[in-house]
Amino acid sequence: MSASMSKLFLFSRFSSIQHFQTLPKRAYATCVQTKALVYNEYGDPSKVVKCAEIKVDDLTSQSVRVQMLAAPINPADINTIQGVYPLKPDLPAVGGFEGVGKVVEVGKDVTDIKPGDIVLPAINTLGTWRNELVCSSHHVMSIPHDTPIVTAAGIKVNGCTAYRMLHDYVLLSKGDSIIQNASNSGAGQAVIQIAAALGINSINIIRDRPGIQELKNHLKSLGATLVFTEEEARTEEARKHLQSIPKPKLAFNAVGGKSVINLIKCLQPGSTIVTYGGMSRQPLMIPTASLIFNDIKLAGYWMSRWHEQNKQSPEAQQMIQQLCTWAKQGQLRPPQYSEVSFQDYHLAIERTMEGFTSSKQILRFES
Amino acid sequence: MSASMSKLFLFSRFSSIQHFQTLPKRAYATCVQTKALVYNEYGDPSKVVKCAEIKVDDLTSQSVRVQMLAAPINPADINTIQGVYPLKPDLPAVGGFEGVGKVVEVGKDVTDIKPGDIVLPAINTLGTWRNELVCSSHHVMSIPHDTPIVTAAGIKVNGCTAYRMLHDYVLLSKGDSIIQNASNSGAGQAVIQIAAALGINSINIIRDRPGIQELKNHLKSLGATLVFTEEEARTEEARKHLQSIPKPKLAFNAVGGKSVINLIKCLQPGSTIVTYGGMSRQPLMIPTASLIFNDIKLAGYWMSRWHEQNKQSPEAQQMIQQLCTWAKQGQLRPPQYSEVSFQDYHLAIERTMEGFTSSKQILRFES
Repeated sequence: MSASMSKLFLFSRFSSIQHFQTLPKRAYATCVQTKALVYNEYGDPSKVVKCAEIKVDDLTSQSVRVQMLAAPINPADINTIQGVYPLKPDLPAVGGFEGVGKVVEVGKDVTDIKPGDIVLPAINTLGTWRNELVCSSHHVMSIPHDTPIVTAAGIKVNGCTAYRMLHDYVLLSKGDSIIQNASNSGAGQAVIQIAAALGINSINIIRDRPGIQELKNHLKSLGATLVFTEEEARTEEARKHLQSIPKPKLAFNAVGGKSVINLIKCLQPGSTIVTYGGMSRQPLMIPTASLIFNDIKLAGYWMSRWHEQNKQSPEAQQMIQQLCTWAKQGQLRPPQYSEVSFQDYHLAIERTMEGFTSSKQILRFES
Repeated sequence: MSASMSKLFLFSRFSSIQHFQTLPKRAYATCVQTKALVYNEYGDPSKVVKCAEIKVDDLTSQSVRVQMLAAPINPADINTIQGVYPLKPDLPAVGGFEGVGKVVEVGKDVTDIKPGDIVLPAINTLGTWRNELVCSSHHVMSIPHDTPIVTAAGIKVNGCTAYRMLHDYVLLSKGDSIIQNASNSGAGQAVIQIAAALGINSINIIRDRPGIQELKNHLKSLGATLVFTEEEARTEEARKHLQSIPKPKLAFNAVGGKSVINLIKCLQPGSTIVTYGGMSRQPLMIPTASLIFNDIKLAGYWMSRWHEQNKQSPEAQQMIQQLCTWAKQGQLRPPQYSEVSFQDYHLAIERTMEGFTSSKQILRFES
């Protein structure tokens, strides 16, 4: 084994992990390894995630070979690596719930996917932070070629979350209203845009911060009907603005704590609050009277559960196609993002962990 | 006007209220007045509620004359008089949401109710704290003659609350489990008994207090499967007992605050928590993860809303008949109670306001 090869550890089924070394140009017929962001213990993502060479499964008659194009780093990815997320992949594991790739080879029995197809993961555990993967053809789904790549990369977490929350809890008609907090999150921005595409008014609560007016303008440019800081939402001025549209009958909560009370105060009796995040790290504070007398209902949305329960379903296909159509038409744009090359993954992970002020970090892979 | 009559103020439509004076023996043909517990302002019930003579409406072709037999004083009655309940009767008003009476006369067009029938209110606003009332025949519903009077008097608030919560939120089968806090409340005891009648296991959380073992024994004698104090519910010992029955998929909350967390910890994923009271006066504390990852749902039950939306419905009739059958068979007994004569209403109100240690106060009327 040459000196240069001695550091290039080839392992099967992630039995060991070695830091990344540049590989010579690959040829698909012979390549059995790929660069991936892997972790073999749960812990601080900035420490436990390493770039390593891992073996790519052999192509079978029913599998496809996918070259990844882009994959976001989501808070759920961070929590998974920290070991605090309910999904616990077997270790070692490749990070990444979502992303977008291009099919470069298909097994002889695969008929629904062909080389050149642009695909998203159809399952939760694909591990998208890698240059290349081989998986069952049922574990990816094709999307239109003209879908903007960065939007496609983030559709499965934020886009689908917003879509499902707007469709699965309360029957909304054009002109109805919804209200949300954490409106500047990736999912929050998707909610604003999908609500606008559906003709639904959105009332958006955000935390006060430097440059608040710019942020408000940005959210309005996405289609937000009203935008208030948490403090403004409690004022008489806000109440006047709120009277200009129907009272919302659906709320989305990704903050928790007392922020939920701001949502509750605006809701119609009989409304539903869907919780999909807890940025404040405080339990939701729910006044008893709102449940009993105002008939407020609470539920949770977990992206991973929905995808697990609905993989390969017509609903999943229909949703993805609709989201891609909106993306192509410019009605669904990604949140503010930074494209980061694979080599700079450390930077991308650290920025994601900084919290709400940083933009979405999108890993771009080698083509 | 004689001196004795000068204090006996007769008023129409509660235009004024005077303290109670004993009336001469009445004859139905001529009697136009009755003793009632009335309030003409919202405030401290021990101060604003007065025993007064009020005019009884004239009997029409479609109305019935009812002599009240018994009526409980519920926390909801107290809150209504305090003006803090969402139902705000026009003032002056007669207190009392529920009770049981005997029909003594019916209008010529009334066919479904006859003299001698035992009836419950079919609407929320009858005002049951009075000797006699005349109302539309649609505003009361007949129950079997052999229903124990005190149980019947309390069926509409506690019995119906327990029945609806056990039927309307989660489909339960024999052998399933439910969990509740405030298990010693009137509704809590009804939950225990109805669950037992339906073959449902009940896990019952109570606050620690003097005589805790006697209370546990009492709840078990009603059919409780397991009983824990709030502190015990968090122990390893409790967890072992809980493993002997299926995890509950439905919870009832009448406490709020952190007590809800004890319920949540015991529930199956996908369970529903129904809130019908808030004895701790603290908002419910709901961990974000329980909503997102455990798919816990929250809803509220408000007895008044259900009765308002379902008056004269087949569901209401069926429920009342079933509750009366259980009452007759001894499967549904009232909580610990004290019968109090009309004259001693002050005592009954004060005891109710003392809170959870006092027994249910049941007003008994003159026959």
